[in-house]
Amino acid sequence: MEIKVGVVGATGYAGAELVRLLLNHPYAKLTAISSVTFEGQKLSEVYPSYFGLCDMVCKTQEEVVEKCDVVFAALPHGLSQELAASCAKHMKFFIDLGADFRLEDEETYKTWYGCEFLDKALHEQAVYGLPELFRPLIRGRTIIANPGCYATAVPLAVVPAMEAGLIETNHIIADCKSGTTGAGRKPTQTTHFPDCNEGFTAYKVASHRHTPEIEQTLSCYSPNPVNLTFVPHLLPVSRGILATCYAALKEGVTEEQVRYVYHRRYQQEYFVRVLPKGSVANIKHVQYTNFCDISVHVDEHANTLVAISAIDNMVKGAAGQAIQNMNLVLGLEEKTGLMLIPPAF
Amino acid sequence: MEIKVGVVGATGYAGAELVRLLLNHPYAKLTAISSVTFEGQKLSEVYPSYFGLCDMVCKTQEEVVEKCDVVFAALPHGLSQELAASCAKHMKFFIDLGADFRLEDEETYKTWYGCEFLDKALHEQAVYGLPELFRPLIRGRTIIANPGCYATAVPLAVVPAMEAGLIETNHIIADCKSGTTGAGRKPTQTTHFPDCNEGFTAYKVASHRHTPEIEQTLSCYSPNPVNLTFVPHLLPVSRGILATCYAALKEGVTEEQVRYVYHRRYQQEYFVRVLPKGSVANIKHVQYTNFCDISVHVDEHANTLVAISAIDNMVKGAAGQAIQNMNLVLGLEEKTGLMLIPPAF
Amino acid sequence: MEIKVGVVGATGYAGAELVRLLLNHPYAKLTAISSVTFEGQKLSEVYPSYFGLCDMVCKTQEEVVEKCDVVFAALPHGLSQELAASCAKHMKFFIDLGADFRLEDEETYKTWYGCEFLDKALHEQAVYGLPELFRPLIRGRTIIANPGCYATAVPLAVVPAMEAGLIETNHIIADCKSGTTGAGRKPTQTTHFPDCNEGFTAYKVASHRHTPEIEQTLSCYSPNPVNLTFVPHLLPVSRGILATCYAALKEGVTEEQVRYVYHRRYQQEYFVRVLPKGSVANIKHVQYTNFCDISVHVDEHANTLVAISAIDNMVKGAAGQAIQNMNLVLGLEEKTGLMLIPPAF
Amino acid sequence: MEIKVGVVGATGYAGAELVRLLLNHPYAKLTAISSVTFEGQKLSEVYPSYFGLCDMVCKTQEEVVEKCDVVFAALPHGLSQELAASCAKHMKFFIDLGADFRLEDEETYKTWYGCEFLDKALHEQAVYGLPELFRPLIRGRTIIANPGCYATAVPLAVVPAMEAGLIETNHIIADCKSGTTGAGRKPTQTTHFPDCNEGFTAYKVASHRHTPEIEQTLSCYSPNPVNLTFVPHLLPVSRGILATCYAALKEGVTEEQVRYVYHRRYQQEYFVRVLPKGSVANIKHVQYTNFCDISVHVDEHANTLVAISAIDNMVKGAAGQAIQNMNLVLGLEEKTGLMLIPPAF
Repeated sequence: MEIKVGVVGATGYAGAELVRLLLNHPYAKLTAISSVTFEGQKLSEVYPSYFGLCDMVCKTQEEVVEKCDVVFAALPHGLSQELAASCAKHMKFFIDLGADFRLEDEETYKTWYGCEFLDKALHEQAVYGLPELFRPLIRGRTIIANPGCYATAVPLAVVPAMEAGLIETNHIIADCKSGTTGAGRKPTQTTHFPDCNEGFTAYKVASHRHTPEIEQTLSCYSPNPVNLTFVPHLLPVSRGILATCYAALKEGVTEEQVRYVYHRRYQQEYFVRVLPKGSVANIKHVQYTNFCDISVHVDEHANTLVAISAIDNMVKGAAGQAIQNMNLVLGLEEKTGLMLIPPAF
Repeated sequence: MEIKVGVVGATGYAGAELVRLLLNHPYAKLTAISSVTFEGQKLSEVYPSYFGLCDMVCKTQEEVVEKCDVVFAALPHGLSQELAASCAKHMKFFIDLGADFRLEDEETYKTWYGCEFLDKALHEQAVYGLPELFRPLIRGRTIIANPGCYATAVPLAVVPAMEAGLIETNHIIADCKSGTTGAGRKPTQTTHFPDCNEGFTAYKVASHRHTPEIEQTLSCYSPNPVNLTFVPHLLPVSRGILATCYAALKEGVTEEQVRYVYHRRYQQEYFVRVLPKGSVANIKHVQYTNFCDISVHVDEHANTLVAISAIDNMVKGAAGQAIQNMNLVLGLEEKTGLMLIPPAF
Repeated sequence: MEIKVGVVGATGYAGAELVRLLLNHPYAKLTAISSVTFEGQKLSEVYPSYFGLCDMVCKTQEEVVEKCDVVFAALPHGLSQELAASCAKHMKFFIDLGADFRLEDEETYKTWYGCEFLDKALHEQAVYGLPELFRPLIRGRTIIANPGCYATAVPLAVVPAMEAGLIETNHIIADCKSGTTGAGRKPTQTTHFPDCNEGFTAYKVASHRHTPEIEQTLSCYSPNPVNLTFVPHLLPVSRGILATCYAALKEGVTEEQVRYVYHRRYQQEYFVRVLPKGSVANIKHVQYTNFCDISVHVDEHANTLVAISAIDNMVKGAAGQAIQNMNLVLGLEEKTGLMLIPPAF
Repeated sequence: MEIKVGVVGATGYAGAELVRLLLNHPYAKLTAISSVTFEGQKLSEVYPSYFGLCDMVCKTQEEVVEKCDVVFAALPHGLSQELAASCAKHMKFFIDLGADFRLEDEETYKTWYGCEFLDKALHEQAVYGLPELFRPLIRGRTIIANPGCYATAVPLAVVPAMEAGLIETNHIIADCKSGTTGAGRKPTQTTHFPDCNEGFTAYKVASHRHTPEIEQTLSCYSPNPVNLTFVPHLLPVSRGILATCYAALKEGVTEEQVRYVYHRRYQQEYFVRVLPKGSVANIKHVQYTNFCDISVHVDEHANTLVAISAIDNMVKGAAGQAIQNMNLVLGLEEKTGLMLIPPAF
């Protein structure tokens, strides 16, 4: 079997990571890539790491759609809708790493992104691609909205407790820390090495665009309204998100119960590792892999659940999960091409 | 004026940082230092940075007490009590950077540190040295318990809101991130460069020894019991603590109110900088200084206060605050020797 | 085909990296691992990254020899000779990542390592496993001395010019910079995060044990004595070696000649990428791969060749090259299990 | 005494570092600053570290010249000449951190910088401000060309051996490594955190603009032509330059001789620390100070001198040395305002 795959926006970080992972996929054949900024240049000129490994030339997105069966897009928001329409017209699978199809509610999308749904029917065809939570809904779909990085890490940490009714939903805190690749390839003052190095701060405090996306997911698991405070921080490392999530435990809930619920919830999930007691999730242990490590802790003194998840923001938080979604919609084993071993150190 | 000062435990990180700051103090004269491990060696052999600047030889703690008017101690817990007694006997000021005199309640001390109060009278003489909160109590004392690093950062961020009755006290979250110097000079697997670099994780989740210390301070400002969940994380940087603190706001409290309260609370405090709206506290901006930067944010959607403080764990979180305490008890201006300008980048 | 492979010393960095790469090898089946320090513990307890991926228990080295066809050893020097004898006796392939079999001259070995050759016959059976330079000699051997990391990077950068007679051999400089994993897993003051971070220095100036090993290799390519000054530096990064090598060019040698010689020398070598003009070798571009990137530059003003090589010290400098050697002696394609794509960023 | 000082180009890294150091100078009073990009904004808006410490507003360079007695300029090359003329006209001291007045030979300046000398008389008034080497020439001057960072580190390491005739001058290698602040404040792909972090490479191999500047200095100390190969590398740290310099030793020269020569040469120099045998210069040990640490090593086997110098590129390599020059021309003690203690860790 050979699946012709292409990447639109291959020269951004998410696009380049897709290329890296697709080159190792046993059935996917990278057939075309595109870039507006670097059209006509080899990908290896933009990313010298790929010299001799992917010297493919960047073309237009039209060429990607034409030549490929599966189209991945890693574009700034607002630009995916037209591409999705084109893919739909030509019967191609479309997996969008951008934000355009993530939010179901158009008003919320307008509020946070300032854009409208160009074609509502298209949005109804789309599905939110977080396989561990919505697998049955994803199968059979052709437009997949790949979740945001924080919107992957936080729900995976919180959902099992919420679903099992172990926590209050009115004062959930998600204190998240992301590596700098989350800010993308374009140089900025914030990610300028001397400004970023040895620094640590929060940003977009309680105003990050992943907030409504996380709430949309959590709300599927709670009969009551979910009240989330989400504060992202910028870690001076390249990759990784650690989400430290706090929620008040309902009375009488014990650590054993919590632990049992999490293990049961994810026991069939290859990509979620619920850590043994005594371990704490660490971004280092999931680097370059599609794993989401979760450790659960109970503060008995304060009756609070602390659920900590770690992902590689570029893999489970972007390119890896996109390939997992491709595998899922194509009927392949989900871990195909994604059985990656993290470095030990 | 010349104050003879000495450092017991000068070869640990806190001790070495004390030396650095004391060398720049206009009235303090570093007169003797001690170290058990490196007795007989020059400090500059242990820390080559100090070559030609502090080639003083490490002696015994007895010699420090004998020769100095002010004795700073940076020792593992359990070892300060005897030294404090000796200082008291010889009428020396004693400023303890360790934990022995921080907790007022002996039971709590026993629970968290596994030691007893050797001499209760001595403990009654001691005072908790967080000048911005307890200045009137500190003046005139001769045994000062210098606060822990987290126990400095968290209360400075939370107290103004609590004191003004703006927040609920039953579900406070302190999600803290510390640089690696907080773990001390002794090499460990956790702080081994390749294990630590590019990693990020929580540790001692809801079980860190600074928890009761923070609660002791916060309780002074709340009529109701304070319920705190404290989770420290290890940042792959050398210096700095960022404390991101969350509390439910009482109904109707606005951001303007919060902002007003913080500015008013700290307007006379040289070392606390309440940042203007739009700024977020960053460990980089306080590096190598005794400042505590605080930014306050209101999540209106979730009705939650987010108060973020940043300190240099080795300065305001240890050596700098110790010198501030010395200045205070000696009647000097508090900022003497501590008017340090952080690097711009 | 299934090759039973084992790792003696699996809990050191080189051993753990071997495990990571062997788990992805299509024909190798990791069958047993050993560790003196962690005998009886799971590898994933030592390296939590491997949780669920390699929970194999560390046994004795005897068990590894017994159960496996190929035995890799990553041991402190002096300990491999006995193990090699045991492997020879039981007709196992032995690939040694340590230093015991690298030096052909016993006197040199004594001088630099303070040990003797326990069994000279064994040493005669051994071969130095740098495939790009000594491939024909390696085939058919059963005891392979895997080169040191610097001793891989420097010769690959210098040999083409030397072999082609383009440079003087009497004043070669190898200014090398290595990431901290080169110092191994054991915590030390030098690799303690706060001491190492934001620092940079040379160490073992002109006295590093890889010096005679590099000279041994270079001497194979020069009729005249080779005079090398080798200075290693410690880079505050996890992985990678950059070797910047300098040699006086013979009169009249042009950059085009140099470039031609390097391209021709390595055109058949999958793992050596001679970079195009305008590119400079960077440790980032070879991370987590078995590549050695080489860029060549001519300082026309000073008539000096600057040849720069970059490797991942744990892969091409240790575990990856060891597997390359295994592939070679077993008659597999050399790149089997080693077609790794470096991250783009 | 109060010296009115001003900084033209205060929002670049060198300018901002000047501000930091000048704020601590006992006699200098920072009176005006300018910036083209940020005119009208507070410096603390550009560098939040300075909040409450330097909220001075950026004005025009004319205002700086008008109000100040000493004008420091940290401008891109080509822009200092006009400013120097203006300072000369108004009888102000002018200390230029840029390159315009560093090279004495106009042809060389044209070749490397592509500009001409606008006013040759002005260039004749200027002096090259490396106090440890050219102190007698600097005194009494009013236009000072502050040396480049590499052009400070390399000559300080090489000159004593050259001056004493211990080394051959025909094949000197300066392998230098600089932290990222050397690239300035403007974000670029090269200094974008994820691209730079965990990477290490050379740049401008044998073609860096500091080459002729270094050669100009070295030539003052050698009767024979100096032949230098200079290769800079980019270190993934914020601050610091380590220059590892190699030269063939003349026959019979011993390590003791070398050591004696270096100690004697710098024994009166406060800012140069010749390290004791066994120590190696490290950028960490000079961070945030005006020191230049030097360690000398002899490779007896290869008869090669290895002289290693470490400076903070922003202090001794820029702002600190500029203040040292100001002190010198004003007749102050050179270390005034520069008695900085580096952090121990």
